[in-house]
Amino acid sequence: MKIAVDAMGGDFSPREAVRGGLQAAAEKNLQIIFVGREEEIKEELAAAGYQGEAHALVSIVDAPEVITMDEHPATAVRKKRNSSIVVANRLVKEGAADAVVSAGNTGAAMAASLLTLGRIPGIARPAIAIPMPTLRGATILLDAGANADCDPKDLLQFGLMGTVYAEAIMGIDSPQVGLLSIGEEETKGNRLVLESHQLFKKSSLNFIGNIEGQELPKGLCDVAVCDGFVGNIVLKLTEGVAGVFLQQFKEILTGSLRGKTAALLIKAGLQSLRNRLDYAEYGGAPLLGVQGITIISHGRSKARAFKNAVLFGAKAVEEGLIDRIRQAIEDYRGLGKKVKE
Amino acid sequence: MKIAVDAMGGDFSPREAVRGGLQAAAEKNLQIIFVGREEEIKEELAAAGYQGEAHALVSIVDAPEVITMDEHPATAVRKKRNSSIVVANRLVKEGAADAVVSAGNTGAAMAASLLTLGRIPGIARPAIAIPMPTLRGATILLDAGANADCDPKDLLQFGLMGTVYAEAIMGIDSPQVGLLSIGEEETKGNRLVLESHQLFKKSSLNFIGNIEGQELPKGLCDVAVCDGFVGNIVLKLTEGVAGVFLQQFKEILTGSLRGKTAALLIKAGLQSLRNRLDYAEYGGAPLLGVQGITIISHGRSKARAFKNAVLFGAKAVEEGLIDRIRQAIEDYRGLGKKVKE
Repeated sequence: MKIAVDAMGGDFSPREAVRGGLQAAAEKNLQIIFVGREEEIKEELAAAGYQGEAHALVSIVDAPEVITMDEHPATAVRKKRNSSIVVANRLVKEGAADAVVSAGNTGAAMAASLLTLGRIPGIARPAIAIPMPTLRGATILLDAGANADCDPKDLLQFGLMGTVYAEAIMGIDSPQVGLLSIGEEETKGNRLVLESHQLFKKSSLNFIGNIEGQELPKGLCDVAVCDGFVGNIVLKLTEGVAGVFLQQFKEILTGSLRGKTAALLIKAGLQSLRNRLDYAEYGGAPLLGVQGITIISHGRSKARAFKNAVLFGAKAVEEGLIDRIRQAIEDYRGLGKKVKE
Repeated sequence: MKIAVDAMGGDFSPREAVRGGLQAAAEKNLQIIFVGREEEIKEELAAAGYQGEAHALVSIVDAPEVITMDEHPATAVRKKRNSSIVVANRLVKEGAADAVVSAGNTGAAMAASLLTLGRIPGIARPAIAIPMPTLRGATILLDAGANADCDPKDLLQFGLMGTVYAEAIMGIDSPQVGLLSIGEEETKGNRLVLESHQLFKKSSLNFIGNIEGQELPKGLCDVAVCDGFVGNIVLKLTEGVAGVFLQQFKEILTGSLRGKTAALLIKAGLQSLRNRLDYAEYGGAPLLGVQGITIISHGRSKARAFKNAVLFGAKAVEEGLIDRIRQAIEDYRGLGKKVKE
């Protein structure tokens, strides 16, 4: 299996992308195609102890252009045909790679996948699906930011794609799907959610009803559906609140001798908590609904996050995620048709 | 000054409402009017050590009906004319009380205020304004759940009312107003926020631009504006994430002897953190935009939360919050007119 890694994407690239890719190659015997400025990638490979024979699984595809964080995504993708993210997606489109991983400009990564790979037939809007750490493991939140404005049909498709994701990647049988809202009752919500609730109720999804904000971190459902505006705020707010908490605890644990003593006593527990909250554990989030596996990683990704993103991409390929979504959309009576109307 | 307390509202009523009201009366020499089932209130007053002379500041207005948590708010308010929340609002309308505090069914409390007190002229949609604890103190979030669907004009009015609130109650000079969105740039957001951003930019508000979810807990602005669907999810998610964190730390600190020893060492720091996060510190949230001071408290309010809600209501009366909002709306050139169109 071949995974294309956008070596130029992310705050610490190409170094961390290259290191993470090498780690994944070693761990799972995957072929890694680093896409980006060849000379820079070669330098990083050398710095990481790259030795031709030992790393026969590694190759480079030169892509001289780079899309930066402040460029307009769709425009940049159209103009920079030789940027690392566009070339990496093209490799997937042409069958030279099975999946692509990028920690670059999220909008550009989405645009490159959408424009290069195209949508799965019947899918109106691809969505970013993020695994959020909860008390019970992880809940797949989607859409985490691809579509700021959605209609009920979009949300239903998110529920369907999230279900396939949870089944295929997390091995959950008949995943429970919740609709993020402001009250448990089906009469609570904004117009979008009120209408969506009725669609979900009639669907074949294992719909457990509305989920309120305070229930989300408890992990009451396997898949939580919302529009990309709400999802992105939920994702970032959770990160923000968790960060503030960790900072405040850190202050308590470093601000005095008593605090420092306490910190030593509970070091293991704190580390395990920090690990559970670490986005690097998950590595990245797939853009579901495009015709290929695209994993979008956090801009602050380090080697471990890249490694996990590559392994995640490989798992998605192994499990046939795209075909399963295609099949689910086809099987879903009426839904495909409605989308085409 | 007279504050009407809905003695029947909240999970622990009338006991906690009565105790909190008595504490506020004692602390600030306020007149408290307990509204609800007279016999039950009398029993609680007796249990709390009520003695006629010492509590000349306390009176009771009988309201035999109670609106429960599962009733449809507007319907219940229209039918139960003698419910505690409706009677308490009527006291404000008639000038027999200066403010009302309720921890009952939030929807019913809003409906009772809207239907009984009416809107301030020019205000399209009253909003719930919640002080959210942040690293720098508190950010006023509105709307926290009164209006699931809003238009840009509503959001601008929320910004205006939030500004008056921050000035009048928190004593902040020229409060910084942020628009909750999914990117800092004015091109990021859903349709509502994109359009609202342009209105905010042209307004006289001290608008600092979009605020992302992760910035909210850092307290980067004094007033954060969003629609009531997003606001309610933000509020409850923050509560949920904080709750999960406290629980996990609790497990670390109680799960082993080392943990228990650590807990003793950092007891004071943890308590201070817990206090800062405690909604009871703030007591409640005003429904801004109605013609009277209405403080809506958490359903789980205990005596201290009721006391703080009453003191908060008294402060809002002292500072002339309603007149200042009325004046701000009048002064706001064009805005009043646009609303009436």
